[in-house]
Amino acid sequence: MAAAVNLAAEAGSLEALWSPRIAARINDYDVKVARIEGEFIWHSHPETDEAFLVLEGRLRIELRDGAVDLGPGDLYVVPRGGVEHRPVAEAECRIALIEPRGTVNTGDAGGPRTVRVDESG
Amino acid sequence: MAAAVNLAAEAGSLEALWSPRIAARINDYDVKVARIEGEFIWHSHPETDEAFLVLEGRLRIELRDGAVDLGPGDLYVVPRGGVEHRPVAEAECRIALIEPRGTVNTGDAGGPRTVRVDESG
Repeated sequence: MAAAVNLAAEAGSLEALWSPRIAARINDYDVKVARIEGEFIWHSHPETDEAFLVLEGRLRIELRDGAVDLGPGDLYVVPRGGVEHRPVAEAECRIALIEPRGTVNTGDAGGPRTVRVDESG
Repeated sequence: MAAAVNLAAEAGSLEALWSPRIAARINDYDVKVARIEGEFIWHSHPETDEAFLVLEGRLRIELRDGAVDLGPGDLYVVPRGGVEHRPVAEAECRIALIEPRGTVNTGDAGGPRTVRVDESG
């Protein structure tokens, strides 16, 4: 019998910023947690929706046609189909991401901020 | 641009207990919210994992070989493959469920507590 996981605590235990860790799996989807602060890069996920859930702190998801401001307990789904977005947190923020296994944090943009999440866990 | 949804508030707005509502969609998965109190029925989902996330209150998920106690922010995934479980909340509890679209609340058990979630929204 697997244990429950506290998402905010799991996110808070992460040393590195912007480095998601898989906290749970739902079939072929991952629930990842991350600790973030500052600005990420603009990117999109042509093939998949990506759900952001704020656990602690505040997150702004910038979009090309506006922005969505999220506080604790707020969920926002960035649609698939090349919708460019950039997560920004002015102060430390803990989030959960829900997306298909193998979704890469930098999406179509790639580059040095790409983190390969351990798939073996 | 869709709006963000506060999961706890969305759950709290539900009049009926044990009657999940779709709060968001992630590809072919639903994020549902529900307001629960008391005991549900024993059931399983042979074909799919089912994730429970507690938003407010406390939830006990009884399993045939034990139980998992969850508080706010705790996530637990009941595995697919016929794992029988029964959610129990001694006091009002607000939860989110993450599961493939079309997953029925009573799983293989069916019966009068089955709720057909609106698929058109």
